[in-house]
Amino acid sequence: MTTDIKSIYLDNNATTRCDPRVVEEMLPFFSEQFGNPSSIHSFGSQVGAKVREARAQVAALLGAEHDSEIVFTSGGTESDNAAILSALDLAPERREIITTAVEHPAILSLCDYLKKHKDYTIHIIPVDKQGRLDVAAYKAALSDRVAIASIMYANNETGTLFPVEGLAEMAKPYGILFHTDAVQAVGKVALDLKNSDIDMLSLSGHKLHAPKGIGALYLKRGTRFRPLIRGGHQERERRAGTENTTGIIGLGKACELALTYMEHENTEVARLRDKLEQGIISQVSHAFVTGDVRNRLPNTTNIAFEYIEGEAILLFLNRMGIAASSGSACTSGSLEPSHVLRAMQIPFTAAHSATRFSLSRETTEDEIDYVISHVPAIISRLRALSPYWDGDKPRADAFQPDYA
Amino acid sequence: MTTDIKSIYLDNNATTRCDPRVVEEMLPFFSEQFGNPSSIHSFGSQVGAKVREARAQVAALLGAEHDSEIVFTSGGTESDNAAILSALDLAPERREIITTAVEHPAILSLCDYLKKHKDYTIHIIPVDKQGRLDVAAYKAALSDRVAIASIMYANNETGTLFPVEGLAEMAKPYGILFHTDAVQAVGKVALDLKNSDIDMLSLSGHKLHAPKGIGALYLKRGTRFRPLIRGGHQERERRAGTENTTGIIGLGKACELALTYMEHENTEVARLRDKLEQGIISQVSHAFVTGDVRNRLPNTTNIAFEYIEGEAILLFLNRMGIAASSGSACTSGSLEPSHVLRAMQIPFTAAHSATRFSLSRETTEDEIDYVISHVPAIISRLRALSPYWDGDKPRADAFQPDYA
Repeated sequence: MTTDIKSIYLDNNATTRCDPRVVEEMLPFFSEQFGNPSSIHSFGSQVGAKVREARAQVAALLGAEHDSEIVFTSGGTESDNAAILSALDLAPERREIITTAVEHPAILSLCDYLKKHKDYTIHIIPVDKQGRLDVAAYKAALSDRVAIASIMYANNETGTLFPVEGLAEMAKPYGILFHTDAVQAVGKVALDLKNSDIDMLSLSGHKLHAPKGIGALYLKRGTRFRPLIRGGHQERERRAGTENTTGIIGLGKACELALTYMEHENTEVARLRDKLEQGIISQVSHAFVTGDVRNRLPNTTNIAFEYIEGEAILLFLNRMGIAASSGSACTSGSLEPSHVLRAMQIPFTAAHSATRFSLSRETTEDEIDYVISHVPAIISRLRALSPYWDGDKPRADAFQPDYA
Repeated sequence: MTTDIKSIYLDNNATTRCDPRVVEEMLPFFSEQFGNPSSIHSFGSQVGAKVREARAQVAALLGAEHDSEIVFTSGGTESDNAAILSALDLAPERREIITTAVEHPAILSLCDYLKKHKDYTIHIIPVDKQGRLDVAAYKAALSDRVAIASIMYANNETGTLFPVEGLAEMAKPYGILFHTDAVQAVGKVALDLKNSDIDMLSLSGHKLHAPKGIGALYLKRGTRFRPLIRGGHQERERRAGTENTTGIIGLGKACELALTYMEHENTEVARLRDKLEQGIISQVSHAFVTGDVRNRLPNTTNIAFEYIEGEAILLFLNRMGIAASSGSACTSGSLEPSHVLRAMQIPFTAAHSATRFSLSRETTEDEIDYVISHVPAIISRLRALSPYWDGDKPRADAFQPDYA
């Protein structure tokens, strides 16, 4: 086996490669058909039809009932903010929000602001050591004082799936709007929103091989909404601003492609992920998979390598041409373990080392074999440098985590 | 002169063609260097540097003092909303806003919402028949009850420039934040923000040959700010969400190009605009230019052709391959004259016919000659159909506007 320096991208939960077929679809709309969709002249004549097609492509991937349920935004973070702030604005007498300890900062940072500056009460539902939601705590928080419940579909770090359809159903009797940040799930998990009680759902283009700077908010027909961004009449008065036509057309194409790859994602990508995971775990002691391994995204594995530093692992991986991640990219730069791993009460010595490998439909068997063949040596070398490690096991006086 | 059906784009105030050099600059960042700027691995290694370069390019075009004064957003509308809502959030005791009757809907629609739902007092400063701001009314509205004054730099429909530097200076003693929507001015007018009292300025990429879906908000150093969109730490905590790297890189290149074309814009583009305007006015009776002709954008002329319908003019122009606009694209679909022309008290019979020709650096002399040669015949044909027209003049009993 030749081992030239490769370029293996296993950081698809951070961002994905824009599919060249998506770029090709977008290209004519930069400098040829560059008019606004509403323009009557020939420079925009095809744009309106393409935007309508894109809306239908997004709706199809979500299993939405109507194309008009799709509102294009600048990305997942905007969609998340818009969903929550709309719900609060529409029900000013409801002063509580339900969310989880493992949400993306797009939710948690906004909730933190609302708590500190707008006097909202935030119910932060905890998770267990496998990252599973405490459904009893969720049920206990439901009341008619709650304006919105925002519960992620799948966790970005561990891939753990939450039972959002059921949670949405439970919220309904209280008149609580149910939103889910599905940025990590869309394109990897089959969705059927028309048969769910989910009122609002956020998605992000760049997580599914569309470009950055485009996303969407699903708004179930009949859901009242107040826009975050006001101005012109675009998006049926739900999101003002000149339409990002190239981004919209790219997102549409990406959703069409994602639908065709959905089975591949859940068979072939999942198989490669399992192979990678087993290949590593079987060769490395004191390593374990975080999150709910029986109920997670098909492309994600998050592996803790006890007694070493995640950042060091990433640097060594990078030197071998392997891109992975520790925690989410949004929080990198910090030395704290991620809020997700802390919420799961992963022991400190393990949380620091957690490394996320996130695959995509572009990941190949050769790439996975290459990673399996290199990770054990990297971990050995780093452990040889660790003050907590002695030969082939932790030092006798090192902290021994309790996984009971 | 051959008169094949041409494609002449004179609707650059609605949106511009993305410069092919901009597209070329962006292309590698869709599918090759597609990592996030903060990623340490090789798929994003060049991205951070390119984003920094883009920020410097935008800052240079604005004459900003520091690159860090530039916050990338999804466009002009988001920038406008963010500026106003930040000012209000930071000074909850100030319950008044100053703006003008001729702002873009991104400002007016938000102000209307704030008035109706949040009980704000909005001072809407009027303009005169040439579209010039009533500076006395502006001064009279200034007080320490005002949180923000938002006054556009240049009007999108007529090109009329407002004296924003002076207005900003007047607002300062009252502790009023001064924002300008400069979406139409950036790239056409030389700016020197480091020597002004403007605190915040909005710009939009697609108005200056960058793609749609990217814009920026200038925030003078020291200006307090609360983000509209919360989440990750991007843009120094001023705008969350994964950076639209391709958009940012495209906007940077577009700003660099705009700086090199600034003189051309104010000599050659202005000359062609003047030629077009004179060529039409000298051949068509009962036609006049709206707005402040001595103080306006170099690329814009808005011509009223009395007693006929603007939409009909556009259709006839389109048939000859000429793209122009009546009112702003955002309000098209409505039969009312635009709010800008109504604020200028342009007589009804003229306001309905106002047609905006907006040029760009890509406009050629041949194109202008072609337009000049066709507009008079189009107007004659439409007037022959007008119930207010008789031969070569208005009917004796038609409404006679008073332009005194």
